[in-house]
Amino acid sequence: MNPVSRDVVLESLQWRYATKKFDPTKLISPADWAVLEQSMILAPSSFGLQPWRFVLVQNPAVRAQLPPLSWGQTQPVDASHYVVFAQRKDLSVADVDRYVERIAEVRAVARETLEGYRGFMLGYQQKAAEQGWVNAWSARQVYIALGQTMAVAALMGIDTCPLEGIEPAKYDELLGLADEGYTALCGLALGYRAGDDKYADLPKVRFATGEVVKTI
Amino acid sequence: MNPVSRDVVLESLQWRYATKKFDPTKLISPADWAVLEQSMILAPSSFGLQPWRFVLVQNPAVRAQLPPLSWGQTQPVDASHYVVFAQRKDLSVADVDRYVERIAEVRAVARETLEGYRGFMLGYQQKAAEQGWVNAWSARQVYIALGQTMAVAALMGIDTCPLEGIEPAKYDELLGLADEGYTALCGLALGYRAGDDKYADLPKVRFATGEVVKTI
Repeated sequence: MNPVSRDVVLESLQWRYATKKFDPTKLISPADWAVLEQSMILAPSSFGLQPWRFVLVQNPAVRAQLPPLSWGQTQPVDASHYVVFAQRKDLSVADVDRYVERIAEVRAVARETLEGYRGFMLGYQQKAAEQGWVNAWSARQVYIALGQTMAVAALMGIDTCPLEGIEPAKYDELLGLADEGYTALCGLALGYRAGDDKYADLPKVRFATGEVVKTI
Repeated sequence: MNPVSRDVVLESLQWRYATKKFDPTKLISPADWAVLEQSMILAPSSFGLQPWRFVLVQNPAVRAQLPPLSWGQTQPVDASHYVVFAQRKDLSVADVDRYVERIAEVRAVARETLEGYRGFMLGYQQKAAEQGWVNAWSARQVYIALGQTMAVAALMGIDTCPLEGIEPAKYDELLGLADEGYTALCGLALGYRAGDDKYADLPKVRFATGEVVKTI
């Protein structure tokens, strides 16, 4: 391990901001993109269930349709890359089983040895379904991936802007998500800030540390 | 900016895992902790509203009470640091106004100049409250901070384990969160893995990239 220095972390997180204006001529290199993609794929999730899908929208004709479905924001068109973070809808027994199969495959263990873990996950999934928070639970996992990806991008010197102001149902239809049992939660634009984005230099607004962090 | 190299990012994210067994003798240095704290504080959130609180539990007597409220998991006691990620409950007009005041203060602008932005936020907050998803919305923001913090920790060579298996109501009572309008969502243990944590060397299980990332 080559740990990143404290100064680099702080500098990167201070440098990051929700980029309003991207430079459409500056593209993320394929090598950098591969790492950002891994930062989504490798994100932690509850039990490791990965109740998500990441839709990278590259087709310019599709991207052109996104601003009207995104409160008029133009980042989906201007940024180098635009990813829609979608969640699994109504995570079910079949999803748990698919994951169990994958564990058996990746770790080369017999499926039977995973019965205990499967039962543990199913107990939680069933409770979540019965109590009506299975979709809220999955959505939170997607936001872990969102947070990890924005942090990694900042550390790599790549700008991002999360877009929660989207019309999920229309995104789902345009991207074919609904038919496959997923629904859009938010978009993430990635690329490089325009030189004249006036938001870049505004002081970052955070509540006083003592109000946000409590020590007991 | 000194961007972190692609190799370091990939190595760190592969190295990370949900640490089951921490070495209770290895403590995060105060200097490293200050950076991890900043990674929570500086996390992005919707409109920048920061609908969260981070409770660092240091008191050993309090920490000793957490495993029974955490499905018997011992990370709250064994890890160097244990933070409870809590969300603001029923985010209200007063919360938006508190944030507007803070913007005016930090950016040294007259409060009146922020009326447009205030109205924009209030429109969203009101819709969320009326449609019943204001708490789901705030919870997601907290998970952005969770994802960012786990990513930053990994890059700094610090282990983490998120704990969703907690009893929120009992956490709230123990930590005095309910009285202040917050509720616990999950815990995050931070520190250093024990040399004999058998989970450390298990291959990471992820679905095939083609199933998780779709390009359109």
